[in-house]
Amino acid sequence: MSLLPKALENAIEALGQLPGVGPRSAERYAYYLLKNDSYKTNKLIDAFSTLHKGVKLCPVTFVLIDSNCDVSPLYTNPGRDKSVIAVVSDPFDVIAIEKTGLFKGTYHVLGGLISPIDGVTPDDLKISELVSRIKSDGVKELILAMNASVEGETTSLYLQQQLEDQKVIISRLARGLSVGVDLEYADHISLGRALTGRQKM
Amino acid sequence: MSLLPKALENAIEALGQLPGVGPRSAERYAYYLLKNDSYKTNKLIDAFSTLHKGVKLCPVTFVLIDSNCDVSPLYTNPGRDKSVIAVVSDPFDVIAIEKTGLFKGTYHVLGGLISPIDGVTPDDLKISELVSRIKSDGVKELILAMNASVEGETTSLYLQQQLEDQKVIISRLARGLSVGVDLEYADHISLGRALTGRQKM
Repeated sequence: MSLLPKALENAIEALGQLPGVGPRSAERYAYYLLKNDSYKTNKLIDAFSTLHKGVKLCPVTFVLIDSNCDVSPLYTNPGRDKSVIAVVSDPFDVIAIEKTGLFKGTYHVLGGLISPIDGVTPDDLKISELVSRIKSDGVKELILAMNASVEGETTSLYLQQQLEDQKVIISRLARGLSVGVDLEYADHISLGRALTGRQKM
Repeated sequence: MSLLPKALENAIEALGQLPGVGPRSAERYAYYLLKNDSYKTNKLIDAFSTLHKGVKLCPVTFVLIDSNCDVSPLYTNPGRDKSVIAVVSDPFDVIAIEKTGLFKGTYHVLGGLISPIDGVTPDDLKISELVSRIKSDGVKELILAMNASVEGETTSLYLQQQLEDQKVIISRLARGLSVGVDLEYADHISLGRALTGRQKM
């Protein structure tokens, strides 16, 4: 005999699908929703009902856009320089870069990083679309803005090789010390990168 | 201008209501649901739609039961001893005690613990219902199975005072060393309790 009501078990199971949510967290979330009035639960139901219908990928830059947009406003905006593209792996990376307020070019979301262990090959990424954008938009510089991980480095290297014969400057985000980090406590790899990539003052 | 599609923002906001879910986790959950096909999202919608309708409180023991049950099966089951009640604060505490397999009595869920700081007074708890159960069920022993927290101790003390004139044995869960804990690493309060509550061999 099950100790919990079926409806509560279903909610716990459904919440347990979310990434990083274990059975105890799922129990906590489900019980929280149950304890509160149904307003919070209905808000989740409403949001989830429109989630897939309300969001699509921009056909040019592959950032997430409203379904009723044709192309990302970050691309169509005349203030953005189409000759510079920041290449990122995931849509939320765009938000991170936008928050710096220092980038006025456009974006290209690959939709992941090359990772043989997870079964992600170059064919799964929007690389051919990037190559055709280089021609059609007259791109002068590509900034490879990947994570500083093995997968990020692999993808950067792969792109570099693929784009060798294109007349385009390829740069990547600087590696070095994070702002505010004590030299003493910096990890030795970042410190090494900061040394080899030292900047003239 | 918002950087994210409205539908995705709504989902992030709704998920951010859950306890302990910050904006980054909410983003991660929402993006996970969006990346996967709508099956997972629909499963959540279905589970949430029936959550409130499918669950109710048992009118006697206040554990969570299926809406189509009258009384908790843990109470109606003839194998359970109605003269012993374990008093717990939350419905999930029942699950924890059931998992030990060592308790054959019935339960009474108070629905919280006395906590002036959170505005929870004795009137918010199912205490009068407990008192009437003591008479109607001919209860001989109450086991106060609260958390080992300030609120748990407060609630235990309050119940003890309220039930002074009832002819019922009041016991509480033993405090002491957790199984598997090294004496050296035990916190000094638990070790103190283990000393004062030492058991004859």
